[in-house]
Amino acid sequence: MRITFDELKGFLDEQFPQGAAYGTLQKLGDGWAEMKLEVDEAHLRPGGTVAGPAMMGLADVTLYAALLSRIGLVPLAVTTNLNINFLRKPVAHSPIWARATMLKVGRTMGVGEVFVYSEGIEEPVAHSTMTYSIPPER
Amino acid sequence: MRITFDELKGFLDEQFPQGAAYGTLQKLGDGWAEMKLEVDEAHLRPGGTVAGPAMMGLADVTLYAALLSRIGLVPLAVTTNLNINFLRKPVAHSPIWARATMLKVGRTMGVGEVFVYSEGIEEPVAHSTMTYSIPPER
Amino acid sequence: MRITFDELKGFLDEQFPQGAAYGTLQKLGDGWAEMKLEVDEAHLRPGGTVAGPAMMGLADVTLYAALLSRIGLVPLAVTTNLNINFLRKPVAHSPIWARATMLKVGRTMGVGEVFVYSEGIEEPVAHSTMTYSIPPER
Amino acid sequence: MRITFDELKGFLDEQFPQGAAYGTLQKLGDGWAEMKLEVDEAHLRPGGTVAGPAMMGLADVTLYAALLSRIGLVPLAVTTNLNINFLRKPVAHSPIWARATMLKVGRTMGVGEVFVYSEGIEEPVAHSTMTYSIPPER
Repeated sequence: MRITFDELKGFLDEQFPQGAAYGTLQKLGDGWAEMKLEVDEAHLRPGGTVAGPAMMGLADVTLYAALLSRIGLVPLAVTTNLNINFLRKPVAHSPIWARATMLKVGRTMGVGEVFVYSEGIEEPVAHSTMTYSIPPER
Repeated sequence: MRITFDELKGFLDEQFPQGAAYGTLQKLGDGWAEMKLEVDEAHLRPGGTVAGPAMMGLADVTLYAALLSRIGLVPLAVTTNLNINFLRKPVAHSPIWARATMLKVGRTMGVGEVFVYSEGIEEPVAHSTMTYSIPPER
Repeated sequence: MRITFDELKGFLDEQFPQGAAYGTLQKLGDGWAEMKLEVDEAHLRPGGTVAGPAMMGLADVTLYAALLSRIGLVPLAVTTNLNINFLRKPVAHSPIWARATMLKVGRTMGVGEVFVYSEGIEEPVAHSTMTYSIPPER
Repeated sequence: MRITFDELKGFLDEQFPQGAAYGTLQKLGDGWAEMKLEVDEAHLRPGGTVAGPAMMGLADVTLYAALLSRIGLVPLAVTTNLNINFLRKPVAHSPIWARATMLKVGRTMGVGEVFVYSEGIEEPVAHSTMTYSIPPER
């Protein structure tokens, strides 16, 4: 693992001051991360459920954290592809959390998957895969 | 076309009061829609560019508008799959806008594609395809 | 589990006589399946590696098997969306095999993920997610 | 355009001797290509329709042709991500054809989209987006 939990938390706070809108870091391991989002009114949509973009934002930043555990604090790694399947309706006012795992970290790109959960539901509410492009100049 | 521009605009304002964070309706046709997002600090990320979730949120709601042009004002249509490729770096403080087109609207699902543009760049900055599930009880 | 290994093997042989070109059933559980493909010249591509469509075909049929373990022998279940990430170069003349797991089986659709492996490489060579549409008239 | 129709046709015949199973080149332009597949028994599946992998193989090779129109005859360009939505049931014994268009061709990767058609149906039967990785050593 190239970075510690505290180093990453400090980096995210500094680089993404608005990042709390996407989620906060809970756990970090070698090639994996967990983040949590406290759902508020801004994240809801008709039908009393969590909006898709809130789940996508959480999934995106959680995989970013998992990637950084392997490559270090690289601000310019960017998502190039994201695919997400919405599986179940989250509980409207419960927090959602995500667990991301890298499937491959190469020299120029990283691919991983993310399961998103809603507190109070055992099975995942969404599943996403993503590709991150890693800038060459590090 | 099952609804007018004004009917949809009123519906979106009512059902998604926080929806302006995703984008505002610009144009609407039979099976297509255009929406625009004024990018502010909350939508930026390190490297001086627009955050992926801002583009995903805009793409998602624009395809929702395109779908409703065909099926009417159905609040409970939900995204089941979204795939997005990020193609170019948007201009940091320029508005982004999206044009969504339905590829198929069936009885239980609709599939469409969305091009996302950044004002000042001719070619698209992102391209997304999505599946919406249409509830049976209409 | 709605069917046995032998019932599914017989069904696949009968319904997909050309199916051996996609893979053969190895293991079957409740919501999961494993299939294997003996790679021959028809599956190779320049660079001495297995062609993408061979891996996609194997992934597709393996998730179909996993789905049938839950819904029974439904010939008309069809793939509506498939996303695949190619992670590593398979060994050219080694068999490839896939393990598929359902993430959700609803009334009208099933979503699952598939890891594809190349014999001789520990980590997955591809990862796919898919949505199957389940016909109503069963 | 970096290559002619005849140069690409010769290249595909030489590098992919089994390639006719995926499709044959019909038209080629700057950043786009059309290919056609004569559907035979090997491409069918239960329900009297064309198998998904036949459409995926055709889409994959057609986008490869479109990419080569821009970068020249690079055998080792490989697909890293493919997403496909199956929209309509193709006619069982009609040829299928595909039109691929590049959305971006960068230094290390190309992204494009493909519409797949079944002769006798006006609207597309499938739509796919793909990312190709372009090897550095050219």
